[in-house]
Amino acid sequence: MAAYTLAAREKTAGDTIICIPSRMGQVKIGTGHCTVIAGSCAVESREQYLPLAEKLKAMGVHILRGGAFKPRSSPYSFQGLGEEGLRILAETRELTGMPVVTEIMDPRDLDKVYNCSDLLQIGSRNMQNFSLLKEVGQIDKPVILKRGLAATIEEWLLAGEYILAAGNQQVILCERGIRTFESMTRNTVDIGAVALVKQISHLPVIVDPSHATGLRSLVIPVARAAIAAGADGLMVEVHLQPDQALSDGPQSLSPEMMESLLKDIRDPRGRVS
Amino acid sequence: MAAYTLAAREKTAGDTIICIPSRMGQVKIGTGHCTVIAGSCAVESREQYLPLAEKLKAMGVHILRGGAFKPRSSPYSFQGLGEEGLRILAETRELTGMPVVTEIMDPRDLDKVYNCSDLLQIGSRNMQNFSLLKEVGQIDKPVILKRGLAATIEEWLLAGEYILAAGNQQVILCERGIRTFESMTRNTVDIGAVALVKQISHLPVIVDPSHATGLRSLVIPVARAAIAAGADGLMVEVHLQPDQALSDGPQSLSPEMMESLLKDIRDPRGRVS
Amino acid sequence: MAAYTLAAREKTAGDTIICIPSRMGQVKIGTGHCTVIAGSCAVESREQYLPLAEKLKAMGVHILRGGAFKPRSSPYSFQGLGEEGLRILAETRELTGMPVVTEIMDPRDLDKVYNCSDLLQIGSRNMQNFSLLKEVGQIDKPVILKRGLAATIEEWLLAGEYILAAGNQQVILCERGIRTFESMTRNTVDIGAVALVKQISHLPVIVDPSHATGLRSLVIPVARAAIAAGADGLMVEVHLQPDQALSDGPQSLSPEMMESLLKDIRDPRGRVS
Amino acid sequence: MAAYTLAAREKTAGDTIICIPSRMGQVKIGTGHCTVIAGSCAVESREQYLPLAEKLKAMGVHILRGGAFKPRSSPYSFQGLGEEGLRILAETRELTGMPVVTEIMDPRDLDKVYNCSDLLQIGSRNMQNFSLLKEVGQIDKPVILKRGLAATIEEWLLAGEYILAAGNQQVILCERGIRTFESMTRNTVDIGAVALVKQISHLPVIVDPSHATGLRSLVIPVARAAIAAGADGLMVEVHLQPDQALSDGPQSLSPEMMESLLKDIRDPRGRVS
Repeated sequence: MAAYTLAAREKTAGDTIICIPSRMGQVKIGTGHCTVIAGSCAVESREQYLPLAEKLKAMGVHILRGGAFKPRSSPYSFQGLGEEGLRILAETRELTGMPVVTEIMDPRDLDKVYNCSDLLQIGSRNMQNFSLLKEVGQIDKPVILKRGLAATIEEWLLAGEYILAAGNQQVILCERGIRTFESMTRNTVDIGAVALVKQISHLPVIVDPSHATGLRSLVIPVARAAIAAGADGLMVEVHLQPDQALSDGPQSLSPEMMESLLKDIRDPRGRVS
Repeated sequence: MAAYTLAAREKTAGDTIICIPSRMGQVKIGTGHCTVIAGSCAVESREQYLPLAEKLKAMGVHILRGGAFKPRSSPYSFQGLGEEGLRILAETRELTGMPVVTEIMDPRDLDKVYNCSDLLQIGSRNMQNFSLLKEVGQIDKPVILKRGLAATIEEWLLAGEYILAAGNQQVILCERGIRTFESMTRNTVDIGAVALVKQISHLPVIVDPSHATGLRSLVIPVARAAIAAGADGLMVEVHLQPDQALSDGPQSLSPEMMESLLKDIRDPRGRVS
Repeated sequence: MAAYTLAAREKTAGDTIICIPSRMGQVKIGTGHCTVIAGSCAVESREQYLPLAEKLKAMGVHILRGGAFKPRSSPYSFQGLGEEGLRILAETRELTGMPVVTEIMDPRDLDKVYNCSDLLQIGSRNMQNFSLLKEVGQIDKPVILKRGLAATIEEWLLAGEYILAAGNQQVILCERGIRTFESMTRNTVDIGAVALVKQISHLPVIVDPSHATGLRSLVIPVARAAIAAGADGLMVEVHLQPDQALSDGPQSLSPEMMESLLKDIRDPRGRVS
Repeated sequence: MAAYTLAAREKTAGDTIICIPSRMGQVKIGTGHCTVIAGSCAVESREQYLPLAEKLKAMGVHILRGGAFKPRSSPYSFQGLGEEGLRILAETRELTGMPVVTEIMDPRDLDKVYNCSDLLQIGSRNMQNFSLLKEVGQIDKPVILKRGLAATIEEWLLAGEYILAAGNQQVILCERGIRTFESMTRNTVDIGAVALVKQISHLPVIVDPSHATGLRSLVIPVARAAIAAGADGLMVEVHLQPDQALSDGPQSLSPEMMESLLKDIRDPRGRVS
């Protein structure tokens, strides 16, 4: 297999730092920063999403997340609000001034998603959707690339290489747990991979402790571990009423838990500011 | 997770038998038949593919396979001939009268791929590319749905359910090996899954012993095992000069080995005719 | 890691065929034979085990299995009858004339187990219990070495090498499923490993379709697949009343199913005689 | 499967804190402490081990580790010094006053190992060696129980339950990485399991970042992550000359790296004292 070269550490003088402009000032992702992305799994409605966004903004979260197009194992599960979800995201961005990230699942949605968000997310199921990778490789906004459930570190970097090779240098890798035999947790977060990728690549690496565990009670300890291992940030699911979430409720934090997590990682070294 | 219902055994009176018309007569896939699909991993050129097709036709292979769009881990690996590959496939179909199957990776390629092939293949990396599944759910040609590398049986059936729910009842499931810790073989073929899916679903199930093992020497024994476990057919990589194949050479059979495999599964019960 | 050499194919002129003397004649295990080992998971009582043994003898099963010492995940589960179980096995051997195999878990039990059985089994949890391997390497009876749940093929052969290097050349490898993310089946039988080990080693390889699947309905198709892939035999759990078995009931065959399995693998090539 | 009850959180008023007496004062393992165990993989010689022990003592390491009986995949690899190794351990304990831990592989070695060490270790390959578990369940010294390579959290706790049920309440669980498809690291450390077990059990949980990663460069970040996730301590491989280690050299820290790790986890909250 031809190796990754653009993603490799030796190819750049230093680490890649990604800058996202926003009315609230520039948000940076990369070595030396600890960037927090939070929001509900899906954008469920204007009434659900806007108050959540305001709350997260007040806490000091840097970037909002919210899914408009949701990849669901079953065709009978809630599939997201689609374009209506994008509109709510755009309005939220306008009202709060915060940058937003949302998932793109289909290359034909590129323009719409591009217009409503500041970063684009490629989900774990699409990590090797090469058509989609080539497409987001041609835009000028950052892409968060989640690791596939059974993707090796090499394949993950090579998926990033597809985007880099197509011209987009703003790639953020996101470890979100791999699939193992363990069934008490939804996935097994590969904390060693986070440390290893920081060593062999110059790209920023963040961790999604929500999907990695599937259990609310594990999100905070795993988030702490991620930062301790060298992750450049977190992507966390939060819901004002986790028990009523249309998707991923069991792994969503309440705002109180989110606040506690933020306090926890704002350690004496002041990585979160 | 909402369950599969259209793919479940109880939903139909009997097993689904898929009929593919061809100049050589109807090819059937499903319980009671043993259908053999063979060809090279990629369509490499007219000179490479046509003679191979003639040879496979002479052996009694039922359907030709050949990739025009190739999903490759690295952006620097051979990506397939694209539309030129589709043209060669169409010409081969015309010349030999055999049905052909090729992979579709991007919903925007649907018309082109539809016009040049008799069956469409969804590769393992795209098993949960839900946009693509919904798209092929709206056509009137059979779809071979490969199991994802880390997909559970339930997720595989639910991916099939996306296609069925969109209106296309011609779904063929293909087990091609899952990813485990074992590294001597490329993947681990889940033979128990073949038997189990035949029990819980009415859909045809075939096995790809080439990707499942990654080693030429294992293709024949695993193909025999697949048929013994109840698989309805095989999908096998064959190349006139395996050592010069542009992709998947180490797992490609020579024509002589393919002939031996066919003889091997034409057992006294005469399942291959 | 130092490689296996005694277990490697090149080290012997031909395949190892193991001969087990019995009052009913010699039982052979190895290439060219298809040897069937059957019995209940545990020896539960004289009344349970003797009638089962008589029934299996009448069917043509070659070797009886029955556990006296049972490795159980929980200390609160039935742990086997221990020495009383060994006595029942010895009596059954005496009455039926059939060879018996039972598991050894502790090197301190070697003499007792040796005296009551014709073959010794090392269970998957003890595949790398090196003290035990060295101990059974010093006896003159065959050893069935089950593959560990997460053991690579290389580690499995190296575990066999421990026995061979200690002087016992009568090693039979048994594939019984590895642990993967799939949860509908108890384990995932690695059929490719069976074919591969037959190619790289001269040792006999058998398959345990009962533990490999955990589901009665899958035992027969997986057993058929094992033979088709080149396995030299089967080890199957059978119980006169599977639903009342003290352990492994859901994967135990009824005698009728066992009879059907035997008929099934006595194919036109007459591998089972 | 009968559940663990003695290992479950609800069974005790608070968390289990294990106290190990030593000439240097009592060493505690459990919630609220951060205990560091370090030493070479194997005790290689008096000349190799004693100077290392002195160095680790000077750094503030709490407990020494060193293998006398080494479980090795190959019978041709260095198997440890055996009883000579135990003698060196005993002498080191005498000279330094530090508690020592070493692995027991065979129930017949219990007296010898008991006499030379303060804690006994059950290795991952023996996690379900139930004879051994029952044996160490009858002693009055703490037991470190490593998680098996493919053991679920439930099986790990049930293995601990074997020891508890036999009467020994001093059980320390050690996460050391599970086996997954990822091959760039030796194993995948399950950091979520550490957090989860701390929630569902009262037993101390430590992490072995050396075996968990197999790579020296990952030991420190993974150790930091372990502590951040709530682990009660670490077990780390250190060698004065890692490149000349008879086993596990690539994952062994130099003394300088060990010192840096200690400094790193002696964070402002002063968990290591």
